[in-house]
Amino acid sequence: MSERVLVKQLQGLPDGSVSVSGWVETVRDQKKVQFVILRDETGAVQLVNPATRPIDPSADSGTGDEPQDADALALTSLISELSTGTFLTVTGELKHDERVKLGGVEIKIGALEVAAAALPETPIAADSGLDKRMDWRFIDLRTRRNNLIFRVQTTLEHAMRSYWVERDYVELHTPKLMSTPAEGNAELFALEYFGEQTAYLAQSPQHYKQMAQAAGFGKIFEIGDVFRADPSFTSRHATEFTSVDAEISWIDSYEDVAAMQEELLAAAFTAVAEKHGAEIKELFDVDVVVPTVPFPRIPLAEAREIVKARGYDIPRTDGDLDPEGERQISAHVRETFGHQFVFITDYHPEIRPFYHMRNAETGLTNSYDLLFQGTEITTGAQREHRIDVLEAQAQEKGLSLEGLAHYLDFFRYGVPPHGGFGMGLARVLMLMFGQDSIREVTFLFRGPTRLAP
Amino acid sequence: MSERVLVKQLQGLPDGSVSVSGWVETVRDQKKVQFVILRDETGAVQLVNPATRPIDPSADSGTGDEPQDADALALTSLISELSTGTFLTVTGELKHDERVKLGGVEIKIGALEVAAAALPETPIAADSGLDKRMDWRFIDLRTRRNNLIFRVQTTLEHAMRSYWVERDYVELHTPKLMSTPAEGNAELFALEYFGEQTAYLAQSPQHYKQMAQAAGFGKIFEIGDVFRADPSFTSRHATEFTSVDAEISWIDSYEDVAAMQEELLAAAFTAVAEKHGAEIKELFDVDVVVPTVPFPRIPLAEAREIVKARGYDIPRTDGDLDPEGERQISAHVRETFGHQFVFITDYHPEIRPFYHMRNAETGLTNSYDLLFQGTEITTGAQREHRIDVLEAQAQEKGLSLEGLAHYLDFFRYGVPPHGGFGMGLARVLMLMFGQDSIREVTFLFRGPTRLAP
Repeated sequence: MSERVLVKQLQGLPDGSVSVSGWVETVRDQKKVQFVILRDETGAVQLVNPATRPIDPSADSGTGDEPQDADALALTSLISELSTGTFLTVTGELKHDERVKLGGVEIKIGALEVAAAALPETPIAADSGLDKRMDWRFIDLRTRRNNLIFRVQTTLEHAMRSYWVERDYVELHTPKLMSTPAEGNAELFALEYFGEQTAYLAQSPQHYKQMAQAAGFGKIFEIGDVFRADPSFTSRHATEFTSVDAEISWIDSYEDVAAMQEELLAAAFTAVAEKHGAEIKELFDVDVVVPTVPFPRIPLAEAREIVKARGYDIPRTDGDLDPEGERQISAHVRETFGHQFVFITDYHPEIRPFYHMRNAETGLTNSYDLLFQGTEITTGAQREHRIDVLEAQAQEKGLSLEGLAHYLDFFRYGVPPHGGFGMGLARVLMLMFGQDSIREVTFLFRGPTRLAP
Repeated sequence: MSERVLVKQLQGLPDGSVSVSGWVETVRDQKKVQFVILRDETGAVQLVNPATRPIDPSADSGTGDEPQDADALALTSLISELSTGTFLTVTGELKHDERVKLGGVEIKIGALEVAAAALPETPIAADSGLDKRMDWRFIDLRTRRNNLIFRVQTTLEHAMRSYWVERDYVELHTPKLMSTPAEGNAELFALEYFGEQTAYLAQSPQHYKQMAQAAGFGKIFEIGDVFRADPSFTSRHATEFTSVDAEISWIDSYEDVAAMQEELLAAAFTAVAEKHGAEIKELFDVDVVVPTVPFPRIPLAEAREIVKARGYDIPRTDGDLDPEGERQISAHVRETFGHQFVFITDYHPEIRPFYHMRNAETGLTNSYDLLFQGTEITTGAQREHRIDVLEAQAQEKGLSLEGLAHYLDFFRYGVPPHGGFGMGLARVLMLMFGQDSIREVTFLFRGPTRLAP
């Protein structure tokens, strides 16, 4: 039996015997000829079979006395019965033919072996709603568009990790089971831990990536799962998601973090544009724009003024932007600087966690949000590393120092100035692909009403 | 102020002004001269200061009327008070001097700025027990040995991911919150999910990496956290650990999985040996041996015979190896083939999960364990993809088809033959470094009695 060939390799092969494996996308079962579109992870190819039908004795066949080939009859019948989604292997004759729209090649079926037949009724169709598609996500993911999203995810992540590894960052896997909340927030998943303790699921690797700075690791990154028990139903929130985190020592300000992040994103977008740009354009009609560095930076107060001048009054009273405000300031940046990204800086401590360092002169935090095409994808900051200041800021937020005891210990035995960011992977992908919901770019979404499949 | 220079860069720099940042490893506070060993993430350097002590008016100083430099007095005093672990930045004069054992350079301190002073008593010492060191893991991790372990982890992972990415594997992040147990095992962490449902923490990405095959992804990998609620206290088990997983379609047998895994490990060990081999040898007195492929393969029944012939009677009655049996067969392989790895194959279905495919002739599973230096690091298998056989095998194990409904659905709408493996990252590192416990190679270990820091 021939070695399996990927569909994308067919065009480069000479005419002759090949073996392909994949699943049935469509069957066109005509009287005299049968066509099967077979798809694999690299593309689709047309398979063809000259149909051999049983002779209808009642019909005036003219040549009814010719013997029929039992194998040919069986193959024709097998193809007629193929249901969409059936996985199979076909060995046959590859033929280059310019008239074949699908890649200019087709395969005349010699032998066909079904690996696993699909039930005849596919539960979703191209026009099924998002929720129904999520019920049958493993079928939904077979489309070219969805397959592309996860190949792009792979390229994006690998480019980011390569950027870090080349610069001697250490990759961490911090624990997701914690004895105390990481962010001092009540909206946490709790579970019984060996009958004695309560464990919490990490909302972020915040504590531990800071711990790595006290451990003298210098520069670290982690791409891993985090959990949020907020009953949030927006298109931008998930109960479980992949967080892209980095933390670095000996920074002078959050600017050092922002500078690293913009370089990182430029490198990652370059990799995606080079490898997948044409396919993303074809399937999503979206251009992947490699951002120029530095990204524009606008202090929050100024951003609010700009948004107001554009005619939108932000209803929030806490001084932050709201989603429409984010879209407005991003529109301003696009129009003014031709840029898809913008760092919003200088947030008031009231709308930031206690561990953000504050500017001694302005009293504002040394932190930023990064917006991409109108949506926040990151919060970054210099952290407060002075234990007395850190404790005071925690108490000011009403947090118990006892609950934070393990975290605060990290600062008592020496720690360098440091900062970092956390970025939602799915948000970046959602915006890169021009999608409305992170559900579309998450392998298996988890939300308050979605825990399966 | 000068740009920060890493300690490893000092030897390549000319004499002159430099700035280094790190933490105090030791202070030698002599009467006439002070030495500080400063460590950063790349190495250690000797800092030196000619001490300027306050004149004791009662002493016969001889030159007591010379004026004393207040700055010099203050610097000397500051250095005298430095506690181990204090993070600081020193700007001073780099001088190459062959007599300095530590890298042949030293820095004469000009200015010294403390970033965060450590409490004077370090709670652990070099000879502290493992449990105490784990209590203060962020200090424990400052040693060269521990720092190296995580740099090696980074290299190992990046080499594996690069191997996969170059071969068009898709990187996945499967959900850790599940509505049903993945492996049908009762020892699971459960938690309340938005007041209505019970969620379970994934013991493995098994379900979802198989789902990706039904989705037509072809070849996938994931490096992510998994959770085991078994109250296991061995040195090889953890409650939460990083699992290295891959799954591939269109395999002919588990041999295709094994062949990929041995190539992957050879590539990863090559990367580690090249980048860190000398340092691992220096600090752990261990040689990183790049394994030759193929690795030896021994069917389980034959392995048991060999172990018995070596004089060890395996007390287990289920036909499996026990830890001493694993050590014995690995010793045999080392003596016979000079190899650190061995695939043990052909396990009986009774000691394998229901989803392992069985050999039609022997009735044994198409699966393997991979042993590395006497300890199991992996289970791999071809999976049963035929829904009727899969259901029968689940029922034979006493599992409820209802509980597995979401999983079984993956097989009803077409699925290719497939297989994969899961590998414990910490086990590989533990054995590579010749350590007795995975606690030593885990950033923050989680076990039944360990949930903090």
